[in-house]
Amino acid sequence: MIKIAVDTMGGDYGPEITIPAVLNFLNRQDDVHCLLFGHQDEIMKHLPQSQDRISVIHTENEVTDHDAPLKVVRSKPSSALVQAIQSVAGHEAHAFVSAGHSGAIYASSLKILGKSPGISRPASVTVMPTTSIESPCYLLIDSGANIASKPEHLVEYAKLGQDLAQNFLQIEQARIGLLNIGSEKTKGNDFTKTAHTLLESETSINFIGNVEPNQAINGNHDIILANGFDGNIMLKAVEGTAKAVINKISQDIKVEEIDAKSKETIEKIMAKSLKRYTNEEIGGGFILGLPSPIVITHGHASMTMFENSLNMAYKLT
Amino acid sequence: MIKIAVDTMGGDYGPEITIPAVLNFLNRQDDVHCLLFGHQDEIMKHLPQSQDRISVIHTENEVTDHDAPLKVVRSKPSSALVQAIQSVAGHEAHAFVSAGHSGAIYASSLKILGKSPGISRPASVTVMPTTSIESPCYLLIDSGANIASKPEHLVEYAKLGQDLAQNFLQIEQARIGLLNIGSEKTKGNDFTKTAHTLLESETSINFIGNVEPNQAINGNHDIILANGFDGNIMLKAVEGTAKAVINKISQDIKVEEIDAKSKETIEKIMAKSLKRYTNEEIGGGFILGLPSPIVITHGHASMTMFENSLNMAYKLT
Repeated sequence: MIKIAVDTMGGDYGPEITIPAVLNFLNRQDDVHCLLFGHQDEIMKHLPQSQDRISVIHTENEVTDHDAPLKVVRSKPSSALVQAIQSVAGHEAHAFVSAGHSGAIYASSLKILGKSPGISRPASVTVMPTTSIESPCYLLIDSGANIASKPEHLVEYAKLGQDLAQNFLQIEQARIGLLNIGSEKTKGNDFTKTAHTLLESETSINFIGNVEPNQAINGNHDIILANGFDGNIMLKAVEGTAKAVINKISQDIKVEEIDAKSKETIEKIMAKSLKRYTNEEIGGGFILGLPSPIVITHGHASMTMFENSLNMAYKLT
Repeated sequence: MIKIAVDTMGGDYGPEITIPAVLNFLNRQDDVHCLLFGHQDEIMKHLPQSQDRISVIHTENEVTDHDAPLKVVRSKPSSALVQAIQSVAGHEAHAFVSAGHSGAIYASSLKILGKSPGISRPASVTVMPTTSIESPCYLLIDSGANIASKPEHLVEYAKLGQDLAQNFLQIEQARIGLLNIGSEKTKGNDFTKTAHTLLESETSINFIGNVEPNQAINGNHDIILANGFDGNIMLKAVEGTAKAVINKISQDIKVEEIDAKSKETIEKIMAKSLKRYTNEEIGGGFILGLPSPIVITHGHASMTMFENSLNMAYKLT
């Protein structure tokens, strides 16, 4: 039985979406037990009376976006976020899922669980969509955890990412690219130039050179490396643009005179595209370089997205 | 009569698209004269025999993407790119337009024309699309020229950008944001933190704080500031995502059974959206901080996009 610790209180909607997502998830996976961390009264509102494979652990004094990430373990020890990570450290759970304060999750996990061997600074990984059928996604590492990373960290991410691609995406010899503003080796800033040289000389990985942000979505890479700042700019620009453009086109179509059946067909395509390119389908990101899977999803995650995050944690265990 | 110097040889298609774009542009604007720089034989192939308000200046040994930007003025003095910028320096033309090597245009313009007073390092400005009807675009400064910029450069860009928004977009008191990975002042890297503090203390501008890449497209800003590297990541992520997503949706719709009239309506919306969100409609970017307007458009610019670049140069004079 795989045990997943869930922060039911995190995110914009809390138990209202996290609990139904857990129930759906448990219906589909019969070898999982979920540990629900959160305020008992809040949780019980959304939980049917008799429920197998669920434990409720009452917590208080929850983490908010105003809490300083590095202080949370000390200042909010009885919160769902901290208690759930503690349960992973104590081997009561195999993985953790939260839609809460990502900085606090990153800092607290690192503090409580420690780093995996061979990694200086854990990174966050986001599974990004592509328009390719053969390569429907790539791993963006680091998508925002380690803001002040050094070029040598990217070599560690490349190696760990390669293993991850093998285990998680079943890809042998992942094609690894470096996020940069030009395809030539000499392009970019000091960070990307040094990173390029280091990655190029690393024989244990399949480094295929720089990748420009407009090429990333084509599916020619399995992993794209970046420092946490650039990766986060990239992540948010892709998600934000896809969302705004698809919604605008949907609106523009709505006001046109189109027959009902065609409208329905198109609305389905738009809804599917929106799910796919705004990452709802995939479910969020996780931290690379910790001993256990820690999955972080959007604060505004929907029930479907939160369920997909639980699936991601399940796959990663 | 406004005189615009045109590099007819730059970009992926050269005179085949630049000359028809010039002819269309001249048909619409009757107070402009164009100076066409390029190989005479190539230009004449696309030019009708009798043509008012056009001069052809024969050039040779053109700039390619392999040329080192800083060396072009010396190594390719007889190229269209260098000759055309020289004509601006000699007051024979008021502005310059090219789809050529952007690094070479930036470096050569800077060398030949010198900087405007009050600016340390010129930046490139791209007019970016939004989904808002009230604020259909914003200026991204710097979108890729000054890779190693310092936070204090952004204050200069804010001031010059404010004047530009007033003259070019008719916006009084432009709402100025700083590209960053979080909305709070304390978020981001050392560069954005310092830039935030400097911008905040500048009373002559309307600084409204950080803007995340997923919010940029909403039209709540008139100017978004970034260092050249981050700005270029943003620019390319937005354009690439919009292009790939719109094309993929168009393909998905194509294979569905939809009545002919509805299909036509939708195809029009998709084509219009593609134009809008990949910047074809607007025409490219220009350099901020030079004494004359220098407009740089995409290497793969279409005829329409090149014509819109000529329009941009016209508006900027």
